[in-house]
Amino acid sequence: MSNILYTIFEQVKKKKEKGELIIELNVGEPDQNPPKKVIESIMQSLNKKRVKYCSAGGESALKKVIAEKHQINPANVIIGPGSKFLIYAFLKAILSKKDDEIIIPVPIWGTYASMINNIGLGKIKFLKTRLRDNWQINPERLKGLINKKTKLIVICNPNNPTSTTLGKEIKDEIIRIAGRNNIKVIMDEAYKGLIFRKQQKENNINLRNIIQIFSFSKGFAMTGFRLGYAIADKNLIKKIVKFNQITITCVPQFIQDAGITALKKESKFSRKLAVIYQQRVKIAGKILNNTGVEFVKPEAGFYIFAKLPKTNAEKFSLKLLSKHVAVVPGTAFGSFPNFIRIALTVTENKLRRGLEIIRHELQ
Amino acid sequence: MSNILYTIFEQVKKKKEKGELIIELNVGEPDQNPPKKVIESIMQSLNKKRVKYCSAGGESALKKVIAEKHQINPANVIIGPGSKFLIYAFLKAILSKKDDEIIIPVPIWGTYASMINNIGLGKIKFLKTRLRDNWQINPERLKGLINKKTKLIVICNPNNPTSTTLGKEIKDEIIRIAGRNNIKVIMDEAYKGLIFRKQQKENNINLRNIIQIFSFSKGFAMTGFRLGYAIADKNLIKKIVKFNQITITCVPQFIQDAGITALKKESKFSRKLAVIYQQRVKIAGKILNNTGVEFVKPEAGFYIFAKLPKTNAEKFSLKLLSKHVAVVPGTAFGSFPNFIRIALTVTENKLRRGLEIIRHELQ
Repeated sequence: MSNILYTIFEQVKKKKEKGELIIELNVGEPDQNPPKKVIESIMQSLNKKRVKYCSAGGESALKKVIAEKHQINPANVIIGPGSKFLIYAFLKAILSKKDDEIIIPVPIWGTYASMINNIGLGKIKFLKTRLRDNWQINPERLKGLINKKTKLIVICNPNNPTSTTLGKEIKDEIIRIAGRNNIKVIMDEAYKGLIFRKQQKENNINLRNIIQIFSFSKGFAMTGFRLGYAIADKNLIKKIVKFNQITITCVPQFIQDAGITALKKESKFSRKLAVIYQQRVKIAGKILNNTGVEFVKPEAGFYIFAKLPKTNAEKFSLKLLSKHVAVVPGTAFGSFPNFIRIALTVTENKLRRGLEIIRHELQ
Repeated sequence: MSNILYTIFEQVKKKKEKGELIIELNVGEPDQNPPKKVIESIMQSLNKKRVKYCSAGGESALKKVIAEKHQINPANVIIGPGSKFLIYAFLKAILSKKDDEIIIPVPIWGTYASMINNIGLGKIKFLKTRLRDNWQINPERLKGLINKKTKLIVICNPNNPTSTTLGKEIKDEIIRIAGRNNIKVIMDEAYKGLIFRKQQKENNINLRNIIQIFSFSKGFAMTGFRLGYAIADKNLIKKIVKFNQITITCVPQFIQDAGITALKKESKFSRKLAVIYQQRVKIAGKILNNTGVEFVKPEAGFYIFAKLPKTNAEKFSLKLLSKHVAVVPGTAFGSFPNFIRIALTVTENKLRRGLEIIRHELQ
């Protein structure tokens, strides 16, 4: 998987610093601001001098709120500086041998693979999913990849880049397969707050095998705060606490306080965002209609993973960038050379302009 | 090296949550608050909505200020969520083989060893320094530990826990030895702002071999902000940028803005702190006089690394904790079973009380 996602991000940054105006459909960052109350709560915490070292695993008060939300024990919760950091920490804790195997369904956010490469342990087996299957994981094909070396399955649900969600039955079946084979599952649920349909209550998930990772970045538009949390088995949590101790020390108290405010006072914020993004998906559908691009209708989040009629997507992305529109080619998410990921994370006006340029370049 | 430093920290946290009053002479955290202007600048940044994803290596504006301060190129600077995180990142980037060797003079902050253990690559050779040598590194003994496998020397200067600084000639000699043997040196300068004597201008340091790590935590009392930076060779910096990308994403913009304010508007703050700590060192010297403890007079920071007359320091520390005084036993810093580290990081009144209890327990 190529590192092109970050390369494009840094290229866009440079162009902007030179004064160029870019329509950034490349970044998975809500254009909305975080809730006012969240910002205010940081100021209050600063006034209360909540600026000291704190516990490596997270503030008790925040862990308590999270535990109540998910109906689990606070000992199963850990706070980190972004969900990404926690995913890295869990991978580091779980992988121990060169020939450990990790199964990753693709397309998927390329950073998991980069993390595993960086850790230097474990071999990735990619499990390809297909547009014509609505990007669903095929449990039988998953089973076919499992052997005694399989340690871990990493799933992004709702998925980045496809914005589809795993069907309940398929998800349950994956969890059963993992359980039977004593395989851990990292379930990255960063986009969970932005599911379009009304969300049902979760079954109680078996914490022995499943590690759920959550973010404040997408659902609360709190990207720049770097705040996330994970729910997992107690003993695994203890390992991550130790990892936090020797790396980040702790997440700033005032940022954790902002997390409490988000969960307690702004629980409907994500819903509002989801409505906005669902509307933008409709707009994109209309503008890209009859251009020959194909995509599965998103069920969550703010991406469209579009198959181009024939063009090479890396070239197409560079061409778009020269027209001041940034998208990410499919090669960032696996072997998807004729896909692009369009993030619907700019104002409606800008989005329309950006999509019209894409439409124009497709002709 | 034992992990007792964090164990004590978490024990104290729990006792405090139960309502116990502990005189915390265990934590390397200034009791002063960060400068007002620093707090205000965060609020201003929040008002300007500086709450979005930003460059993984750090904001250009902060890197520029740092580059000017150290008279180097911004391309040699990287920002991280605390200097600790950056040290981990550099260790991860430098160590590549099981039999890489790392030389670490002791006593030293135990976290370097924990990090190396966590990374799982490299063997540590400890180079013992002695109280009777004023804790200075002996370059000849350093040379004796070097072989073809030696990749790295890790130095904490000013030192935690001894609060001594490396003599200029010894430091230059170490750098020469490292250079000749193509060994990298990580120089953790977290306590640099708190050197008691007036600081001289640095020689230009050879960036090819030396990685300097700086913190805002100690000199600006900004522990809870998690902000640090490093200066190193460009290519190494690029590697760390990639590590940031796949772990922390970036340090919050509003926290980086606070760093700019600290460096530009509060450059004298560290000086004021240093004067306070120098005064406390005097107080401690008086109270601990004639108790049989021995220590080298600190030249920086806020620790006293005291040799107990005979007692086992781990037992002594636990006994002190039962008397509501927390210190860290010497085993946290290497094989120093009859030393304790006393952090002078509480108000003068509390400090006097804590030291009197220590004095009493020594009798």
